[in-house]
Amino acid sequence: MSDRPSYPNYQSLFSALQGVEIIDQPQQVARLSLDYYHFSPVLTSLLQDRRADLVLRPQNVEQIIAICSICAQHQIPLTVRGAGTGNYGQCIPLAGGIVLDMTQLSAIKSISNGIARVEAGAKLWQIEKQAREQGWELRMFPSTIKTATIGGFIAGGSGGIGSLRYGQLRDRGNLRSATVISLEVEPQTIELRGSAVQQINHAYGTNGVITELEIPLAPAVDWAEAIAIFPDFMTCARFGQTLGNSDGILCRMISVHSHPIPQYFTALKNHLPHSCHCALVLIAASDLEPFTELVGEFGGTVTYQKPALEAQKGISLVEFSWNHTTLHARSSDPQITYLQSLFVNDPQLSLVQHMAEKFSGELFTHLEFIRMQGQVIPAGIQLVKYRTAQRLQEIIDYHEAHGVLIANPHTYILEDGGMKTINHEQLAFKRRVDPHNLMNVGKMKFAATPS
Amino acid sequence: MSDRPSYPNYQSLFSALQGVEIIDQPQQVARLSLDYYHFSPVLTSLLQDRRADLVLRPQNVEQIIAICSICAQHQIPLTVRGAGTGNYGQCIPLAGGIVLDMTQLSAIKSISNGIARVEAGAKLWQIEKQAREQGWELRMFPSTIKTATIGGFIAGGSGGIGSLRYGQLRDRGNLRSATVISLEVEPQTIELRGSAVQQINHAYGTNGVITELEIPLAPAVDWAEAIAIFPDFMTCARFGQTLGNSDGILCRMISVHSHPIPQYFTALKNHLPHSCHCALVLIAASDLEPFTELVGEFGGTVTYQKPALEAQKGISLVEFSWNHTTLHARSSDPQITYLQSLFVNDPQLSLVQHMAEKFSGELFTHLEFIRMQGQVIPAGIQLVKYRTAQRLQEIIDYHEAHGVLIANPHTYILEDGGMKTINHEQLAFKRRVDPHNLMNVGKMKFAATPS
Repeated sequence: MSDRPSYPNYQSLFSALQGVEIIDQPQQVARLSLDYYHFSPVLTSLLQDRRADLVLRPQNVEQIIAICSICAQHQIPLTVRGAGTGNYGQCIPLAGGIVLDMTQLSAIKSISNGIARVEAGAKLWQIEKQAREQGWELRMFPSTIKTATIGGFIAGGSGGIGSLRYGQLRDRGNLRSATVISLEVEPQTIELRGSAVQQINHAYGTNGVITELEIPLAPAVDWAEAIAIFPDFMTCARFGQTLGNSDGILCRMISVHSHPIPQYFTALKNHLPHSCHCALVLIAASDLEPFTELVGEFGGTVTYQKPALEAQKGISLVEFSWNHTTLHARSSDPQITYLQSLFVNDPQLSLVQHMAEKFSGELFTHLEFIRMQGQVIPAGIQLVKYRTAQRLQEIIDYHEAHGVLIANPHTYILEDGGMKTINHEQLAFKRRVDPHNLMNVGKMKFAATPS
Repeated sequence: MSDRPSYPNYQSLFSALQGVEIIDQPQQVARLSLDYYHFSPVLTSLLQDRRADLVLRPQNVEQIIAICSICAQHQIPLTVRGAGTGNYGQCIPLAGGIVLDMTQLSAIKSISNGIARVEAGAKLWQIEKQAREQGWELRMFPSTIKTATIGGFIAGGSGGIGSLRYGQLRDRGNLRSATVISLEVEPQTIELRGSAVQQINHAYGTNGVITELEIPLAPAVDWAEAIAIFPDFMTCARFGQTLGNSDGILCRMISVHSHPIPQYFTALKNHLPHSCHCALVLIAASDLEPFTELVGEFGGTVTYQKPALEAQKGISLVEFSWNHTTLHARSSDPQITYLQSLFVNDPQLSLVQHMAEKFSGELFTHLEFIRMQGQVIPAGIQLVKYRTAQRLQEIIDYHEAHGVLIANPHTYILEDGGMKTINHEQLAFKRRVDPHNLMNVGKMKFAATPS
């Protein structure tokens, strides 16, 4: 908070810690205090001036324990940060204090029997790369895979590319263990296993510093990339749903975009004729033949195909999916913001169609197909031409009134985003590991209220 | 047909063919004329006396072409046979003539980029084994994998172990090409690709001799085997559905059995206490931890666990699933027969429960969970204490009246089994490649009627 008194003696408190990088240069502190909150005009006004007083970048767990102890002793707010690729201000400190930059704890400790044991600051890209060398791959990752950390993904994400096959991070089995350090004068180290990991999964780092994780992998597949275009949006969307339901065609990603979204993908413009609607697909190289046949049956055209061997070089379609779509759109038109929605009971895509027509010209449909409790459904990351916060809320309310679940990306409050209810398990764990309510202050509702 | 005049000069017609093994010893001919039709008391009375006049066992495609030509010239019925592990008399010759035993055409021609190119007589077990050496595995196979051929599986099967992940053989992408020889004086060799393969898929070998196939593989997973038991059947069944819907736990097979079925599994008796209900599971070795937790949440107990490395040795749970269940039950009680059903719209398993209760004591519920158009549903292979054909039909009718799809295993007529409608595509292809209606005579409805 720009109007909050600073704690001038921070520097001296931490300067005794050997090896901890201390960052106090204002521009660097500003950069390391923020994320992609600016995708939301609502969050922009609320968060743009928030800053840490100091950024600490530890090299190992011992240093983190020492930092936690000092923060507890001196009641200093602490906000944990990975690569800062979140979109809801997950890692923006609301009450100043310390930002704990985890990126130096990046060891991949082991990959064996389909499980990766990694430090929280390990980059997803590095895990994917090392896993593939042993015949494995990540089950899911965000479109920011090249920079994002596993800890940030677990604390602030929910799923992504691969969720079409393996569901969400919250699904049983998709996170095996988490090692967490408490914010106490004598910090505890706690390993959570099994369902207990849900206490810290997608909790925005409000309840303990995650230092190490065990994540399950999937058998590696050679994924090719392809773009299919269609003259009509609903045909394109139905193609996506049909492809997702095609159990004999292995896909890692089906990302569907209505006109004019493809026009924002300037690097792909040679493959996206004007006014087309498109599906960006990661598909098993072995399955290109039935994929191409299916595109043809829907009256579409495959305009781009990249073999699996080359898919990891140059441009990847991954970087046009999920919230990279929003990023590209906002590069062309900064007025654009977005929604996050789940069409949980819409197998015929009637609601998808209704919303596209109802808000025609104002809302551009972008769907990512994901698997939820076994079923492939469209998750919408619709682009919205922003007018006012009130109009945005009207659009959200209209969706919710029609049974479309909205995970509101225009709030930094954990419970007001996806879940809409207090997660008592996470709150109880917060009281245990952050008794002074110093971690990511202001993000978890009722955190300050005694239980 | 025992009362049909034989064609005494068959032997001389074929004896000129170098290398073709000719089998005329009556016991051998009887064995090679039959399959597991005796699972059905209805089929037993219709099929038990059917015999070929002669069995031919060619070594290569050239010999098959010569045989086809001779059969066309002399109007000799021809029925193609793999390992004869079918259950509906698929390969039992109704009109005598030749049985063409394909088991010597067993070459695995190539495994590359996730596609196996194989001769029709290749054993599924050999394909699985060679595929695994290269990091691949079969997408699906029947419980008879150790003996069954790929050609027989394609011609007479529909899915099996692995269908939980990859759907059915008929699903787009699960069969890539088929090479077929026509029954004409000058036999044609036809390669079908893409959707065109559906012309011969599950057509009981009525329309052309399948000689070679391209089938897609899946990335290999180390599958462990486990048995979980439950005190209550519906809890056991709901456990199966929940496990199937758990996108973060990789399963290849979920086979659920109500009491008294587990008692028929004598080789597993140490792991199946009296009056238990059980789930037999093939699960990724990496996912045993969340699996075990889920069993516990349903109040079940894991009584058996075999690591992936040992899963291919000794007893496999595969051989207690699908129609091996029926086989074991009939070993104890020959009065038992079975149904095949799909609970396509029963996510709460209410119909499963209703049928189990309605026919309590007469019908024992056996479910195999499979994926159909993206969704995991229970396929029933219920055991039935057989009384009369009429009572069996009543049970079938009652299921169908309540929306349970029945693929009647008590008929040898292709269209009366699964599909219930004439497959005009397969019929048209039959007219093209078997213009004299000599192939597997009597199995395809309207085959003899001019179009």
